Amino acid sequence: MELVSTTFLGPIASFSHQAAVEAFGTSAKLFPRPSFADAFAAVQQQDADYAIVPVENSTNGSVVQTLDLLADPDGAYQDVQVCGEHYLTVHHCLLARKGVIPAGGKDYSAITKLYTHPQAWGQCENFLRKHFKGVERQDVSSTSKGAEIVAKETDEPSAAIASRFAAETHGLEVVEENIEDTANNTTRFLVLRNIQSNRTSQRSFDDIRASQAASPGPQAKHKTLITFMLREDAPGALADALLVFKQHGLNLTSINSRPSQKVNWKYIFLVECQGMSSDKGDAAARVVADLQRVAEACRYWGTWTNRLPSVDQ
Amino acid sequence: MELVSTTFLGPIASFSHQAAVEAFGTSAKLFPRPSFADAFAAVQQQDADYAIVPVENSTNGSVVQTLDLLADPDGAYQDVQVCGEHYLTVHHCLLARKGVIPAGGKDYSAITKLYTHPQAWGQCENFLRKHFKGVERQDVSSTSKGAEIVAKETDEPSAAIASRFAAETHGLEVVEENIEDTANNTTRFLVLRNIQSNRTSQRSFDDIRASQAASPGPQAKHKTLITFMLREDAPGALADALLVFKQHGLNLTSINSRPSQKVNWKYIFLVECQGMSSDKGDAAARVVADLQRVAEACRYWGTWTNRLPSVDQ
Repeated sequence: MELVSTTFLGPIASFSHQAAVEAFGTSAKLFPRPSFADAFAAVQQQDADYAIVPVENSTNGSVVQTLDLLADPDGAYQDVQVCGEHYLTVHHCLLARKGVIPAGGKDYSAITKLYTHPQAWGQCENFLRKHFKGVERQDVSSTSKGAEIVAKETDEPSAAIASRFAAETHGLEVVEENIEDTANNTTRFLVLRNIQSNRTSQRSFDDIRASQAASPGPQAKHKTLITFMLREDAPGALADALLVFKQHGLNLTSINSRPSQKVNWKYIFLVECQGMSSDKGDAAARVVADLQRVAEACRYWGTWTNRLPSVDQ
Repeated sequence: MELVSTTFLGPIASFSHQAAVEAFGTSAKLFPRPSFADAFAAVQQQDADYAIVPVENSTNGSVVQTLDLLADPDGAYQDVQVCGEHYLTVHHCLLARKGVIPAGGKDYSAITKLYTHPQAWGQCENFLRKHFKGVERQDVSSTSKGAEIVAKETDEPSAAIASRFAAETHGLEVVEENIEDTANNTTRFLVLRNIQSNRTSQRSFDDIRASQAASPGPQAKHKTLITFMLREDAPGALADALLVFKQHGLNLTSINSRPSQKVNWKYIFLVECQGMSSDKGDAAARVVADLQRVAEACRYWGTWTNRLPSVDQ
């Protein structure tokens, strides 16, 4: 079967890349784009069938770069739709070039320099305090970038904090695994498609996903994303808007606001809800019509299968 | 009159420092704390009478570090209250050591290196594209830190993007002013006090502020901050909670959610509203009591004078 093409937020071996591999397996040709906006644009221009972008982390909260593109104040991504999601458990590892750390040992004193993304320092604080007090830290733009630098830095005994996936990509050794403070640090990704694309309507993300052996069984629920702005600064305007969701039996699972980028202190609200059936066209149109009475710039972004693993996991 | 003490998020000459000077003028002894948490702790422990912390930027949206401390999942800041706000218009300038740029000219070709906070690059993109294409950029932890480095770097013709306030503090020349792409880039700060403190109840932030000649006239409105979590994942639970605000005639001006840090994908909601009178004790208690019926961990953070300048400014 012909492969679909999926773009992810680069560089190679980023967590987005790993999410793309998990979600699309061998069904897709994967390629990186350097920024969030480039990933959205690739779908809008149909340079890619799908894009996968991080939207939320269980510890750090929303990924505002993605929210700002979904807020889409200039209508640059009018054909982009959300068609799926993927949860990736984030594990950090200590990576070094082969031979830098004596085999089997936990003696890391040879390491003189560490590389990782600023956020990862905070996520591995306990480990770093124990083993790397006073060791020089270099911020890099992504954890996989850090792995790439360490792989090339043959004149210094450096190490990177990055994923096992990055170790495999850059030929590094996993010196210690799961060095993060908090277990279950999970990032949720959204899968985007172009609403005009026949290829992705004929070969949907749910179909591709079902063909992947490793897929966890989805719960029998869907999520829907709707964005809107409030028309006026009237008492209860936001409460009125959210009441529309309740009246349609939709449970809000997430609400975010981002600056409208047009008027200071005016916001675009991004609301995710559950309860819409997969047979969604008409139901969504009715919600948006009711919402339009109390809000403006209402936009339906799509309904997709909820992939949140069961609570007891 | 005895000075109050106010802590701000350092370093010296940061935008928080500038906000503190604008808001407190000569009424307060100002001192920096190195982190958001340290500023909150200073108020909780009454090491400072007040703290001033950034909470929202008109372009970049919420300052999540402050929201996470207000979410206060471990009850570390139980005596901290919000008692005021301050809006600071953010202007970026190009700063260099005196004599590095020929007087009066706009020839910046002598500059070989630029320093600023990562966010400021994005806010001055047009200026940088025009004058500094290909020039080396060094990320620093704050704009004022960049100014400090440039002041000390006598062996290289470097420049920093930072405020006029930072130029004055570090003895640099303002080579060009207001180089930001977007006019009206504004950051809102919250002023914190300890609810147990007699000093700050006797000498309130509003009194201090009124004594500053430069204070803009406040609008005759107040803002209130309330935080809560949803008790269950029932349809409309959030809509029910927000309905309580409407029933009390309170207009929601802002809603944010942050990870609860206890259970993945469970959130703490931070709601700001207008409509509560300054005679607030009883009214707030009634709102919280009603909210407690549909939500949990409800907390009233205070009511303060709205300082948003009129819309036509």
